[in-house]
Amino acid sequence: MKDIKIFSGRANPELSTRICEYLGLPLGHITLGDFPDGEIACKIEEDIRGRDVFLIQPTGPPVNNNLMELLIMIESCKRASAERVTAVMPYYGYARQDRKDEGRVPITAKLVANLITRAGADRVLTMDLHAAQIQGFFDVPVDHLYAAPVMNEHFNSKDLPSEELVIVSPDEGSIKRALGHVKRLGGSLAIVDKRRSSAEKTSQENIIGGPVEGKVVLMFDDIISTAGSICGAAKILDRNGAKEIHVAATHGVLCGPAVSRMQEAPITSLVLTDTLPLSESQLLPKIVVLSVASLLGEGIKRIHRNESVSRLFD
Amino acid sequence: MKDIKIFSGRANPELSTRICEYLGLPLGHITLGDFPDGEIACKIEEDIRGRDVFLIQPTGPPVNNNLMELLIMIESCKRASAERVTAVMPYYGYARQDRKDEGRVPITAKLVANLITRAGADRVLTMDLHAAQIQGFFDVPVDHLYAAPVMNEHFNSKDLPSEELVIVSPDEGSIKRALGHVKRLGGSLAIVDKRRSSAEKTSQENIIGGPVEGKVVLMFDDIISTAGSICGAAKILDRNGAKEIHVAATHGVLCGPAVSRMQEAPITSLVLTDTLPLSESQLLPKIVVLSVASLLGEGIKRIHRNESVSRLFD
Amino acid sequence: MKDIKIFSGRANPELSTRICEYLGLPLGHITLGDFPDGEIACKIEEDIRGRDVFLIQPTGPPVNNNLMELLIMIESCKRASAERVTAVMPYYGYARQDRKDEGRVPITAKLVANLITRAGADRVLTMDLHAAQIQGFFDVPVDHLYAAPVMNEHFNSKDLPSEELVIVSPDEGSIKRALGHVKRLGGSLAIVDKRRSSAEKTSQENIIGGPVEGKVVLMFDDIISTAGSICGAAKILDRNGAKEIHVAATHGVLCGPAVSRMQEAPITSLVLTDTLPLSESQLLPKIVVLSVASLLGEGIKRIHRNESVSRLFD
Amino acid sequence: MKDIKIFSGRANPELSTRICEYLGLPLGHITLGDFPDGEIACKIEEDIRGRDVFLIQPTGPPVNNNLMELLIMIESCKRASAERVTAVMPYYGYARQDRKDEGRVPITAKLVANLITRAGADRVLTMDLHAAQIQGFFDVPVDHLYAAPVMNEHFNSKDLPSEELVIVSPDEGSIKRALGHVKRLGGSLAIVDKRRSSAEKTSQENIIGGPVEGKVVLMFDDIISTAGSICGAAKILDRNGAKEIHVAATHGVLCGPAVSRMQEAPITSLVLTDTLPLSESQLLPKIVVLSVASLLGEGIKRIHRNESVSRLFD
Amino acid sequence: MKDIKIFSGRANPELSTRICEYLGLPLGHITLGDFPDGEIACKIEEDIRGRDVFLIQPTGPPVNNNLMELLIMIESCKRASAERVTAVMPYYGYARQDRKDEGRVPITAKLVANLITRAGADRVLTMDLHAAQIQGFFDVPVDHLYAAPVMNEHFNSKDLPSEELVIVSPDEGSIKRALGHVKRLGGSLAIVDKRRSSAEKTSQENIIGGPVEGKVVLMFDDIISTAGSICGAAKILDRNGAKEIHVAATHGVLCGPAVSRMQEAPITSLVLTDTLPLSESQLLPKIVVLSVASLLGEGIKRIHRNESVSRLFD
Amino acid sequence: MKDIKIFSGRANPELSTRICEYLGLPLGHITLGDFPDGEIACKIEEDIRGRDVFLIQPTGPPVNNNLMELLIMIESCKRASAERVTAVMPYYGYARQDRKDEGRVPITAKLVANLITRAGADRVLTMDLHAAQIQGFFDVPVDHLYAAPVMNEHFNSKDLPSEELVIVSPDEGSIKRALGHVKRLGGSLAIVDKRRSSAEKTSQENIIGGPVEGKVVLMFDDIISTAGSICGAAKILDRNGAKEIHVAATHGVLCGPAVSRMQEAPITSLVLTDTLPLSESQLLPKIVVLSVASLLGEGIKRIHRNESVSRLFD
Repeated sequence: MKDIKIFSGRANPELSTRICEYLGLPLGHITLGDFPDGEIACKIEEDIRGRDVFLIQPTGPPVNNNLMELLIMIESCKRASAERVTAVMPYYGYARQDRKDEGRVPITAKLVANLITRAGADRVLTMDLHAAQIQGFFDVPVDHLYAAPVMNEHFNSKDLPSEELVIVSPDEGSIKRALGHVKRLGGSLAIVDKRRSSAEKTSQENIIGGPVEGKVVLMFDDIISTAGSICGAAKILDRNGAKEIHVAATHGVLCGPAVSRMQEAPITSLVLTDTLPLSESQLLPKIVVLSVASLLGEGIKRIHRNESVSRLFD
Repeated sequence: MKDIKIFSGRANPELSTRICEYLGLPLGHITLGDFPDGEIACKIEEDIRGRDVFLIQPTGPPVNNNLMELLIMIESCKRASAERVTAVMPYYGYARQDRKDEGRVPITAKLVANLITRAGADRVLTMDLHAAQIQGFFDVPVDHLYAAPVMNEHFNSKDLPSEELVIVSPDEGSIKRALGHVKRLGGSLAIVDKRRSSAEKTSQENIIGGPVEGKVVLMFDDIISTAGSICGAAKILDRNGAKEIHVAATHGVLCGPAVSRMQEAPITSLVLTDTLPLSESQLLPKIVVLSVASLLGEGIKRIHRNESVSRLFD
Repeated sequence: MKDIKIFSGRANPELSTRICEYLGLPLGHITLGDFPDGEIACKIEEDIRGRDVFLIQPTGPPVNNNLMELLIMIESCKRASAERVTAVMPYYGYARQDRKDEGRVPITAKLVANLITRAGADRVLTMDLHAAQIQGFFDVPVDHLYAAPVMNEHFNSKDLPSEELVIVSPDEGSIKRALGHVKRLGGSLAIVDKRRSSAEKTSQENIIGGPVEGKVVLMFDDIISTAGSICGAAKILDRNGAKEIHVAATHGVLCGPAVSRMQEAPITSLVLTDTLPLSESQLLPKIVVLSVASLLGEGIKRIHRNESVSRLFD
Repeated sequence: MKDIKIFSGRANPELSTRICEYLGLPLGHITLGDFPDGEIACKIEEDIRGRDVFLIQPTGPPVNNNLMELLIMIESCKRASAERVTAVMPYYGYARQDRKDEGRVPITAKLVANLITRAGADRVLTMDLHAAQIQGFFDVPVDHLYAAPVMNEHFNSKDLPSEELVIVSPDEGSIKRALGHVKRLGGSLAIVDKRRSSAEKTSQENIIGGPVEGKVVLMFDDIISTAGSICGAAKILDRNGAKEIHVAATHGVLCGPAVSRMQEAPITSLVLTDTLPLSESQLLPKIVVLSVASLLGEGIKRIHRNESVSRLFD
Repeated sequence: MKDIKIFSGRANPELSTRICEYLGLPLGHITLGDFPDGEIACKIEEDIRGRDVFLIQPTGPPVNNNLMELLIMIESCKRASAERVTAVMPYYGYARQDRKDEGRVPITAKLVANLITRAGADRVLTMDLHAAQIQGFFDVPVDHLYAAPVMNEHFNSKDLPSEELVIVSPDEGSIKRALGHVKRLGGSLAIVDKRRSSAEKTSQENIIGGPVEGKVVLMFDDIISTAGSICGAAKILDRNGAKEIHVAATHGVLCGPAVSRMQEAPITSLVLTDTLPLSESQLLPKIVVLSVASLLGEGIKRIHRNESVSRLFD
Repeated sequence: MKDIKIFSGRANPELSTRICEYLGLPLGHITLGDFPDGEIACKIEEDIRGRDVFLIQPTGPPVNNNLMELLIMIESCKRASAERVTAVMPYYGYARQDRKDEGRVPITAKLVANLITRAGADRVLTMDLHAAQIQGFFDVPVDHLYAAPVMNEHFNSKDLPSEELVIVSPDEGSIKRALGHVKRLGGSLAIVDKRRSSAEKTSQENIIGGPVEGKVVLMFDDIISTAGSICGAAKILDRNGAKEIHVAATHGVLCGPAVSRMQEAPITSLVLTDTLPLSESQLLPKIVVLSVASLLGEGIKRIHRNESVSRLFD
């Protein structure tokens, strides 16, 4: 691992530290700061000529600052003659803007891919992309990790009896993900059909599949942002008699009313990973944070050593 | 419309003719042929300098020949100084290879996008892409049309009573599409859960939502290829007592055992569009072909006249 | 001017309005907003196919948000089939990071140029770039306007007697600019030599040229950011007996301690342009704001009409 | 040779096997197949990160399928993080479409070069290109091998007496090649002047140079496609009293009427190489196949080891 | 023709003037000069925004200066916002370096194509390229004109009796060209076989075809550079009794010993075109210069008006 | 240093030899020549596959020939499969055309950067660029060396007493450079204000700062071209009583009247480096040439070994 250099942006230095601990490597020395006018200053304080450089920067909020910082770090590394620059983006901001649903809107997820490539990144390492097709927005190789093993290990350790378990998809778009977890964790499947939840129909009709009454319910999502959707689903499940409601998501953006909603919602536990940092005020007692540092670290190690990354998930 | 020129590849000349009829324009004169060794010969027989050229070529089977022919046509037009070349791909071959699910596989849908752009296409007009994210595989503008209006008009004209209607998603991946049709056509929603259909469980359990007994069932898909999935779903619905089973799909690839499966399956009617040509042997009596020529023609007209294409679907 | 469309980002809508007033054109309808997680949402609400689009967005503070917003607007316009997209950047953020003075730092001004071009801008209109060489960072055409005519008109209208006038360069890097103003406004030249100002030498030695005693002093700069340099120079001039000290700069960033420094400094008036918006708290009584809207509007008009922009300054 | 990986497309697996035998290396494990709709499926079954990958695929008939398969293999390798991908194309399809002789035709040989480069090939290894200028269609390095040593060895081993030997150019375009063989094999030169062969003139006039009466005649070409030209020349030579007529060509496409023409023509032997596979029905008794596997294998070895390839032919 | 602008480099201003006379257009005003250190200064003195610009510059000797001047002119036009820039290169320097015959040599003709495209040329107009494949070195459209009509008109006007006429190819590489002229002018074909001319054989054997004794001989070439080859052939023809020897070539480079060789050689007339300028000392009495200005002018007109250029030669 | 190969163009072979002597490496074997028509012929006579190649070529006069030769060398190396090609340009021609001061002029320094990159250079090593921003004209890494250490060593070795020393900026654009030398060498600062030197004012007024009477004056510049500016400044200093006038510049172009002006001017010594070769007639007795070969050699060594180049100047 001698020619490897790992630098952290300012988006999630704790995660970067954990990754380096897993790897047994020191974090590279870099100076990042803001000029008084808000422009980002960057200086790489170690020689990186010919090195295999990894830049860790999830582009969560403040997304534009974090993204620009990543781009500036990439530019710095390329001009400083790094042999290869890998943008490690545990969370890929703007991922939900991945298609044109209507006229005259951007595909910002593609724009971001173009910007990262243009800045000079040779490859990307990311996790639980909102849509797997985003890999195809890049011409450079993308390694795509899944937090599922970490999640499954967490729930497996709880020894939930399969007959008590219902995996619930909080909306129609997440059924595939829910089915994947049924395969791995057992239990039955149900779907919250929010399309009708605003209507006059009885709550019974809001759930397809199930039943959830008296059951331990798990809901999985990739991103929890304002938490409106997941908390709404939780209320419906609660009204339908669910015994426990656990929510799990890889990326805890938790913006806007997310924290207060979560606090109030009938959710037993919210399991997140550390792709994004959580502030004191976001760290509710019901939140469990699982670390993906070893997964990311292992990914970095395998990329550096030219070993298979996909085999991580066999 | 004076500077417009429309040429047809050999993939679906009937559709091209219909599009030109809609537009009131002659098809451009082009010579396409195969050399004895299988190489494609192309000569554009009209002067196209400074013209706004549209090349109509759905890349259905034989997909590699049709794609290469499209690429060669684009190359010919660019060297012949066309002002702008639009690849009109009513069916986009290789669209299902849109992401890396496992290690060391291609994202062929992205490769195709790269090839089309590299050959020189300035823009793309396509219809009912397998994944909307494929638009983001291109840096050139993509206009994406939907066959849904044509489909809905067909079913609306049948005056199906809403209480008798069930829109069924043939698998978990198509629920979003099914919901869209529920919104437009009314009726209730059901999902065939094929995950368990191979198991020992009773057939009742194979359907989430519904019920379908005694109902008129509609199933929508984007592509019908070998028809295995849709015919399997039809059998389950039939065993569950569906009164009529109608299947609708934009793209009728109908390859391999598709025709015999369709013939045998308890499917009342199969509604397709003419994005792909159907041979005599494919044209079963139960197949209804709706034309999207006017939609494509209108799309071409609006692109040429710099009018909104998205407004076509408002 | 029929095929022209002008849209404003959120960086300086007042300037955009003034530019459109000059042109007698309505501002284009665009929706820009922030999602709760800080991602920027953009929808162009008018059809722009085949139009000549100008996007007005000075990339002052908050620079990263304003820059990303500009990039997203460009991406939206290109996908919406605009014929040509001109990025109108009255202030070009990150312009001072225009070269590598030491190892392992970025040339962020070049990165910004690359990002703007990669997003799809066909050309750039800007004003008083920190270094004229930034034009060469682009392969697309750049039109570079000068605020000098507006500045000179302001000072000419004051009828300052040439013999009373001293144009002072606040540091060694601005002597060329100062000389240009001497040519246009008359007066003599002096240079504040800050290199020695921290030393034990007498203040007399701090000024090369002059003398400034009893004179009306004008200092010109391109950007006033934290105002430390210019206020330091003003104090030296004041100690050397200058009668009046006027400062003029195109771009009033006025960040950090700038406002309080300006308030306290022996500066009679600070003349700025409206390339950047000034908040209430920044608008000190001694500040005079000159509008460059008509200059920018005239630049836009000439670009659209294919008329010479350089001739504006003959 | 530890970081090298060699994969074969489906165009000529026997050649690939022979090349690997020469190199003492196993063929890489790759799964290539056709989906029922004719789309090509590809999965590289070995880890190739950081490896030096060679993809062997002559793009003979069916040319479009073979070319697309090559492009998909390249795409797979690039996304799978191969260090370098070399497209080994012993036969380069579409090579004869190398210039615009008339208006509005493609330069398909250049299109193919662009597609191969865009798919991600880092370099190309090919043999006896129809026009040497095709090397210049690429910006990536092209190594161009010649089958001449293998051909010459074959004819040298026959100990043909120089005074009995006539090297005949079958048309005016091949005189340069014929002269090259005269230099290496001895003998005199003659040219079949087909321009007049349809006229009323005596057959004597059809041959420039010579005479061929009672002589052993050798004709060399790069590609034998429908064999019309070469068989026509053979008949003229036969009528002029040639004792033996041997034909040699690197690439045996042998399409359309080629086999029956060859069978009937007064040709003593047809010498081909194994750049393209020959079916049972193509393998006439008079055909001799020389292998270029060791030449290609040596080329691959030298590329991998950074040794001179041109020196192979000194 | 209102938006057209034609500028001339310093390589052949007389030709540019003649082209503009044909078109009835003024030459555009441009200032080109050399700084004392040999760097080229360029200023376009007319506004060219949105114009269709043609830059006339054959890249004959001094080839590097003429090429750089062309590149600088292109760069100037692109930055000055020309709508389209066509490089008009009646003579394409470095065309003979069009392939790699041996290891570690450049394909300079491709490099030149890359430089011209990178500088910003949108298209190229050229004449009698040394190899037609050079068109494929460009991705931008190339219009390729032939001087043959002008040549043929010249020789047709001489009413040479077909039975007295022999078209002689001066070497093996020019037989195709010679055959083309036989088709158009009549006469018989002969080839000077220089391969043996240094040997002990009698001169009779140096000519294939013919006979030339007592005949009027025409030799055609594309470029006459040092004239060694053509003068050598003329001497052989003379020794074989040719009555008159006429030589025709599109491009009269006439460098090194060309003029003295021509003077001494048994050549009756040398017909050249004005793609390259001839100095006083080069203008031997036996030289006839035909103008291609109207051909080039017609090509420019047709490109500008989007009319077929290939039809010029039907 | 085993995989390194260094080749010299014909611009300054003596410098290349000195660099190789410093490195203890042989100069690579390359054949460069001019065809009779002035086209450059290039053949690299050693195998360079996979090597780290450095091409030494300052692009001084004749600038266009030297630049084209460099481009052709780069092209040759890329096609010959060099692993990496570094263009070593001790002098960067056209550097003074680095911005658009008026309409319709080129930014030739950017064009040159584009040409070098397009030809295939992977990186650039240069020295004392006229404007540091030219680094940003490249997307590939640029290493920028300073001759200042060599200059300072020279003047330090003279033990000039600080109180006798005046560092004079010959014009307003060079004050920054002059200040840098004051920091390193001590002494006071003065500026020759040529703006007024043509006026009726007394010579005393021509100098800001100083005084220079009886002092040893040093003037530093980056390029001495026609020497008009520096000799003019020298005369003013002389008239103002300077005791000795020493001039130092990195790049001695010395074109046009430079030599005669230098001879006549009241300049004690002119110190140049060997980035450009000096002919016999240019080598005036008052000229001292310092070698930067070891600086360039050290730069090459550090680039090859992936060591910091910037640290050379700490």
